[in-house]
Amino acid sequence: MAIRITGTGSYIPKNIEKNEDFHQHKFLNADGSSINHPNEVIVEKFKAITGIVERRYADDNLTASDLGFLAAQKAIDDANIDQEEIDYIICAHNFGDVKANAIQSDILPCLASRIKHRLKIKNPKCVAYDILFGCPGWIEGVIQAHAFIKAGMAKKCLVIGTETLSRVVDKHDRDSMIYSDGAGAGIVEATDEEGGILAHESASFTYDEAYYLYFGNSNNKDLCKDTRYIKMHGRKIYEFALTNVAQAMKYCLDKSGVDIADVKKVLIHQANEKMDEAIIKRFYRLYKAKAPEGIMPMSIHKLGNSSVATVPTLFDLIRNNKLEEHQINKGDVIIFASVGAGMHINAVVYKY
Amino acid sequence: MAIRITGTGSYIPKNIEKNEDFHQHKFLNADGSSINHPNEVIVEKFKAITGIVERRYADDNLTASDLGFLAAQKAIDDANIDQEEIDYIICAHNFGDVKANAIQSDILPCLASRIKHRLKIKNPKCVAYDILFGCPGWIEGVIQAHAFIKAGMAKKCLVIGTETLSRVVDKHDRDSMIYSDGAGAGIVEATDEEGGILAHESASFTYDEAYYLYFGNSNNKDLCKDTRYIKMHGRKIYEFALTNVAQAMKYCLDKSGVDIADVKKVLIHQANEKMDEAIIKRFYRLYKAKAPEGIMPMSIHKLGNSSVATVPTLFDLIRNNKLEEHQINKGDVIIFASVGAGMHINAVVYKY
Repeated sequence: MAIRITGTGSYIPKNIEKNEDFHQHKFLNADGSSINHPNEVIVEKFKAITGIVERRYADDNLTASDLGFLAAQKAIDDANIDQEEIDYIICAHNFGDVKANAIQSDILPCLASRIKHRLKIKNPKCVAYDILFGCPGWIEGVIQAHAFIKAGMAKKCLVIGTETLSRVVDKHDRDSMIYSDGAGAGIVEATDEEGGILAHESASFTYDEAYYLYFGNSNNKDLCKDTRYIKMHGRKIYEFALTNVAQAMKYCLDKSGVDIADVKKVLIHQANEKMDEAIIKRFYRLYKAKAPEGIMPMSIHKLGNSSVATVPTLFDLIRNNKLEEHQINKGDVIIFASVGAGMHINAVVYKY
Repeated sequence: MAIRITGTGSYIPKNIEKNEDFHQHKFLNADGSSINHPNEVIVEKFKAITGIVERRYADDNLTASDLGFLAAQKAIDDANIDQEEIDYIICAHNFGDVKANAIQSDILPCLASRIKHRLKIKNPKCVAYDILFGCPGWIEGVIQAHAFIKAGMAKKCLVIGTETLSRVVDKHDRDSMIYSDGAGAGIVEATDEEGGILAHESASFTYDEAYYLYFGNSNNKDLCKDTRYIKMHGRKIYEFALTNVAQAMKYCLDKSGVDIADVKKVLIHQANEKMDEAIIKRFYRLYKAKAPEGIMPMSIHKLGNSSVATVPTLFDLIRNNKLEEHQINKGDVIIFASVGAGMHINAVVYKY
C-alpha cells in the first residue's frame, strides 16, 4: 500500500495587489517612529529580499472557508472520487473566517464543517476538523491523514489549507506587503501503487521561538490597543529557519532512504525568496552538494505568502503545467517543506 | 499493547458566578423583543432544564492557554512521566485566547505552542498543534493520539481541552448562563497493560446541522453589528443530540464487543442536564434496557458547560475522589461521549 495525493486543487483570488499599491501607505517602525525613506525605496528593498512583486486579495464577500471550499471542490474533481467516500476533512488555517473590514475571527463552527456543508457531503462518518499549526498546517494535515490511513481509520482524506491574511495585516507595518490570500487542497488516499509518502518529519520549537510570529498591536500607536494584527520578528525567523528547516529536511530525506541526487524538486513554503534560497543552499550543503538549477519552483513573485495555501497551490500549479519550466513526472522524488508560526517545521519526502 | 490515559489534570477557576448573579441582566429574545417574565422566573426555568446552579469564570489576567497549561502540568505530574518524552501536545478549544473585555481571538501562535512554551519543554520533536472540533474536541484529541500511537508515530501524547466561554457570551441572551470556563488534560500512552481504549467513533453532521451553534450578533440590536458571540439553536440541538449521540454511543459499544450490562459509567459532555439524561435513557433503550442508577456522573450543577473541558475535568474529579458517590475501579468499562458545534459527535469505550 502507498499513501498518495491523488488530486489537487487551488483557489487563487483574482484581485491583484501590486507593490505600487503600497506607495501611499504610511509605514512606521515598530516603535511608532517614522521611516527615513520614501515608500518607493521601502517597496524596492522589500521586493529585493522577498521576491514579491504582487499578491492576491480575496473578494470582500468571501471568507477563508469559501476559498477552501472552492479549492476542495477542484481537488475532489481532480482525484475523480465520490465525495461521500471521504473519511476525513482536515482544514488548516491560522485566523479562521475573518470578514472584510471586521476584526473578529469566526471559527464556530470550524472551517472544515463549513466546507463539508458547502460541498453538500451527507455522510456523517466523514469527520471534519481544523488544525492550527502555523504555515506548515497543510503539510501537517497530510501527515495526519497519513496517520489515520496507517492506523486503519481512513482510506481517503481531503486536506485543505486556506487563509485570508489580507484581513489581519497592520497597514502601518512594512511586513504587511508579504501577506496574501489563497487556498489549496489535496486528496490523500491509500492506493495499490508504489511511491507516495516515503517519510515525514515534524517539529515544534517553542522554548525560545514560540512568539517569533504573534498577534500584536499596530505600529501606529494612535490606533486602538485592543485591535491586534499578524506580526513577526523577521530577522529571528530568518536565522531560525536557515538552520532548522534545512536540518528537518535532512532528517526526513535520510529516513526515506532516497539519495540527495535523486531529489527532483523541493516545494517549500513561499515565505520569502531570499530565505527560501538560503534554506535550500544550506540543505544541500549538509550533503556537501550544490543545489541544482531549477530545484525550487517559486510562486511568491506573483502570489505572495498565503500561509498554509502556498505549498498545495504550488503543487497544484505544477501538476497542471501552470508554472513555467517546472514539471513533475511519475516516479520523481520531491520534498514538501514548511516553516511558520509556532514555530513549527515539517517536511515530507514524496515519490510522485 | 493498550493505549491508556495514564494521568489527568484539570483547572477549575475559583470565581463562582451564581444564578442569582444574572438577576440584574437585561435578557432579550433573539429578535430583540422583551421577555415577559421577571429574571427570577427565567433563571429558575433555566436551572430546571440545565441543572446549572453556578459556573466558573477565569481570572481576568488568565486566558485559555493559561488554564490549559495549569491542567497540563497536573496531568504530567499525575502520569509521572518525563515531559521531554511527550511526542504530541494536542490542544482542543473553540475560541482561542480571548483577553478579558476584548473581542478578538488570539490563535497565533496556536495554544499548544503557548502551553509547550510555558511547560518549558525543550524537545522540538514534541509536535504541538490545536484542533477545532466543537465541544467534542478533547475526546477527538484522544482519538487522534490513539491514531498516532497505532501508526507508530508516537508513544506519549498530552491532550488538553481549554476554553473561556465567559469571554464570548452575549449578556442579553439567556443561553449565556450555560457557559463556563475551565480546562482538563490527559496523558495518552502506549502501555503493556491490557484495557485502555477499546473502540472509538466520530461523526460530523454538517448537511443541515453545521450552524446549530454559530457566532452571531447580540439579542440587543443596539450593540455593534460587527461584534459576535456564541449562539445556539437550543431546541434543534436537543432533538439532534437525543437521536445521534445515543446512536454513536451504540456504534462504539458494539464495536468494542462489551455488553451493555458491563458499562459502569458514562462520562458525557456536560451540556444540559435534561438533555444528557434523555440521551442516556435513549442509549439504554436502544438495548431495550433501563439506565442504571448512578450511571452518569454530573458536574454541571456547580461547573456549568465549559465546552471541551467538561469531559476531562469530570474524569479527573472522579479519579481523585472529588465527585461524591462516583468511583471508577480498575477493570471498569466506561464510555466517554460528547456533542457540540459542527455538529460533531464522538464516543470512546474505555477499560480503566
